[in-house]
Amino acid sequence: MAYSLPEIVTRFGGELLDDNGVRISGVAPVERAGPREIAFVSQAKYLRDIESSQAGALILPPEGRDGGRRPRIVTANPYLYFARVSSLLNPAPQPAPGIHPAAVVHPQARVAASATIAAGAVIGEGASIGERSIVGPNSVVGEHVTLGDDCLLHANVTIYHHCVLGSRVILHSGCVVGSDGFGLANEQGRWVKIPQVGRAVIGDDVEVGACTTIDRGALDDTVIEEGVKLDNQIQVAHNVRIGAHTAIAACTGIAGSAKIGSYCMIGGAAMIHGHIEIADKVRISTNTLITKSLTRPGTYTSALPFSEHGEWLRNAVHLRNLDKLAGRIKELEKRIAELEGKEQA
Amino acid sequence: MAYSLPEIVTRFGGELLDDNGVRISGVAPVERAGPREIAFVSQAKYLRDIESSQAGALILPPEGRDGGRRPRIVTANPYLYFARVSSLLNPAPQPAPGIHPAAVVHPQARVAASATIAAGAVIGEGASIGERSIVGPNSVVGEHVTLGDDCLLHANVTIYHHCVLGSRVILHSGCVVGSDGFGLANEQGRWVKIPQVGRAVIGDDVEVGACTTIDRGALDDTVIEEGVKLDNQIQVAHNVRIGAHTAIAACTGIAGSAKIGSYCMIGGAAMIHGHIEIADKVRISTNTLITKSLTRPGTYTSALPFSEHGEWLRNAVHLRNLDKLAGRIKELEKRIAELEGKEQA
Amino acid sequence: MAYSLPEIVTRFGGELLDDNGVRISGVAPVERAGPREIAFVSQAKYLRDIESSQAGALILPPEGRDGGRRPRIVTANPYLYFARVSSLLNPAPQPAPGIHPAAVVHPQARVAASATIAAGAVIGEGASIGERSIVGPNSVVGEHVTLGDDCLLHANVTIYHHCVLGSRVILHSGCVVGSDGFGLANEQGRWVKIPQVGRAVIGDDVEVGACTTIDRGALDDTVIEEGVKLDNQIQVAHNVRIGAHTAIAACTGIAGSAKIGSYCMIGGAAMIHGHIEIADKVRISTNTLITKSLTRPGTYTSALPFSEHGEWLRNAVHLRNLDKLAGRIKELEKRIAELEGKEQA
Repeated sequence: MAYSLPEIVTRFGGELLDDNGVRISGVAPVERAGPREIAFVSQAKYLRDIESSQAGALILPPEGRDGGRRPRIVTANPYLYFARVSSLLNPAPQPAPGIHPAAVVHPQARVAASATIAAGAVIGEGASIGERSIVGPNSVVGEHVTLGDDCLLHANVTIYHHCVLGSRVILHSGCVVGSDGFGLANEQGRWVKIPQVGRAVIGDDVEVGACTTIDRGALDDTVIEEGVKLDNQIQVAHNVRIGAHTAIAACTGIAGSAKIGSYCMIGGAAMIHGHIEIADKVRISTNTLITKSLTRPGTYTSALPFSEHGEWLRNAVHLRNLDKLAGRIKELEKRIAELEGKEQA
Repeated sequence: MAYSLPEIVTRFGGELLDDNGVRISGVAPVERAGPREIAFVSQAKYLRDIESSQAGALILPPEGRDGGRRPRIVTANPYLYFARVSSLLNPAPQPAPGIHPAAVVHPQARVAASATIAAGAVIGEGASIGERSIVGPNSVVGEHVTLGDDCLLHANVTIYHHCVLGSRVILHSGCVVGSDGFGLANEQGRWVKIPQVGRAVIGDDVEVGACTTIDRGALDDTVIEEGVKLDNQIQVAHNVRIGAHTAIAACTGIAGSAKIGSYCMIGGAAMIHGHIEIADKVRISTNTLITKSLTRPGTYTSALPFSEHGEWLRNAVHLRNLDKLAGRIKELEKRIAELEGKEQA
Repeated sequence: MAYSLPEIVTRFGGELLDDNGVRISGVAPVERAGPREIAFVSQAKYLRDIESSQAGALILPPEGRDGGRRPRIVTANPYLYFARVSSLLNPAPQPAPGIHPAAVVHPQARVAASATIAAGAVIGEGASIGERSIVGPNSVVGEHVTLGDDCLLHANVTIYHHCVLGSRVILHSGCVVGSDGFGLANEQGRWVKIPQVGRAVIGDDVEVGACTTIDRGALDDTVIEEGVKLDNQIQVAHNVRIGAHTAIAACTGIAGSAKIGSYCMIGGAAMIHGHIEIADKVRISTNTLITKSLTRPGTYTSALPFSEHGEWLRNAVHLRNLDKLAGRIKELEKRIAELEGKEQA
């Protein structure tokens, strides 16, 4: 499939300059794009890269408007524009609807006629799969799970019983939705399991990365609101709530009953304590541990800067002695004040 | 299924007060429980919440004995009591025994007649599945694996060949037991794999969370003793031993040959170095790195407190210069002692 | 299968001393090896352990040459030698070639006659499986994936469409290759997905651990070069390149477009920022966050030393006040210089 530049600006807007009739069939990075591909430059400082590019067309920020004669689309947000063009040129494959003969669908499950159930998928009793949704090979949809329309479960996904997914949800391979939370009571040193009777409820347009795990609630539900994007290898514990349109990078862990606001951005390998609340529009840096509620937007960090190992060794010994160092400073202040007193006297 | 309060105290003990004949059919949080549900309050400080509750009955600590007229069970450990009541009211589903026609069981495997093998499960040659054990959809039990009685493998679990599980073991989706440890010899820069010929051996009443991985031993076995509870996304390397009734929160990593005591509690995203030993009853905080053996019970921590990012930037520069700061303090001490000496002279 | 010591030294070299005709059928640790097993001692300091060993033969470093009368092979790198002997004595099981009747192979896929496709495996349209490669139970090989020869995919592995694997690649259970990278453009607070149109390309002799995830590239490919060894639970983001023969321990995360050199060794739970470059032969310690490019070999660390919790509390308060502490030192230096000035005057 190829598109002319006027066809593209008709769909997505932007100012088209110096069109030469090229038809675009793909996207590529500026340095590798060929004459039938479109590339983008996100910021003015990278505009120098376009000189040597072979791209058939470019998506540029306003600063690139007057640079050169090449066919180009000028827009305030080139990266977003590029996302749209790329989605147009790389539509998700839509497999033929129907249930593969090697899938196992419980007779009491409801599968929309336009949905696709791949080989080896297992759909439990009472589950419901919406229009045009795809359940990938060897994925398992538990009893009484509800999937909305246009969902995409890649291969080897697991959804436990009674969980609820909205529409246009994407789950990547190895991810697990609705596993039991880590709920244990202690009886003289031994652990007694607390049945986890809540659900995991996932809103529209959520994407969940590979091997990310979302536990079901203990009594209430775990809730992932609409538009949330979760990267790979994230752990979401029971009763967590993640607000709409928050994005969380890989390897992050969120402990039980934490409430995270909307429009947050959480860096990789962050850890969020349980039972705390994080305001809307908070940013958390990579590797940061959040131990208390955050009531105001802003960026929060606790990462330790790295050093060459020998230098680190020299500094690390003091990390365990900061209280003594602080005490020595206090002592010095006392002594110097005494000296200054005598001096003045 | 519903139970009267006398039926509940007959099973689990506790002091029943002001019974009004209510029959309880479910558990719920205090603020959401209805007239046929039972709720609990774990600590005296939360007793104020019960005034407005609609719960049909309450499980309370001794301090709640004389609070109001509502039907209530008084017990020393309400959370534990609640765990038992919840298990009674929410029994794990017991699917019909038998091998689903879409499961693949090797003719030389032994499956108890009371066990359940779900659709898509694969049971290898020489494997043995005990009484009433359940192997979930698309789970794979390798050659010569032994599963005890009453085990529950959720969907998409993997157990490698020759591993041994006790009874009442629960494995959540995506977890992997018995994968090869990271054993490599180096030959002029290239890595040569060391065959991992030990097993992973898992005791009775162990629960393993979603996407947790437990490697098999290199020569000896990796051992998870009875009653251990592992949350999601934990990595247990080869030859690790985890003592009985230890609980480990999500995202923790334990390096090769570490020995962890019994009755330990290890916080989320902790990292334990290899070849060290941790005593019984140790507690390790979230995000803490343990680099040396711990010979005594206690709580150990190495988390870095977070700050607002600007403040963090101002402090972080000094983290790499602590040795110089300490040197400046030492120098000041010398100079002030000199001044003080002159003063006295 | 059993081998004489002369047979072993003929294959792998080394100096054989005091052979008594023993035939070796297995490997074991020094303290547990029996009369038909061979054990190894990697370093001179452990040579004292061999006195009480029941091992039928030993693999020793040069310092052990003259210790005792027991049959022994002396070699410069006993651990490497042991790796080779163990591989000889513990050959990987080679299942019968062929496609299990419960596997699902697309008619347009190409599977070598010597390859093995286990029960429940699903091979997509246009995929190609090389000679003697094994696809384990319930693993999924996506459309147009290419697998070289002698690959081993354990159970429940997932490879997304169009990815490319070299020969002798080992993928452990739960690992995911080729999932979408975390590519999102922001439109007034909402996230718009960027199609991930690159591939994951994995070289010869790579091993990938359980539940490790390797995202496909956004436009270009994610590349894992030959001989790389990845432990469990690692996250490799889109467009990362990992150089040949680098080994990475468990729970590490590598952000998008990071380039890691060859022959690096990266400790567990390290985090590597995106868009940085790490030179060849760099070592990174456990739990270390690398935020900038590393242009020279060396060891780099940012781990925070742990303490008993009370001590940690006393020190931690100063971590957030280092800038103030440093300011107080500066102030003291000023005041003492003033005093010293007056003293001299």
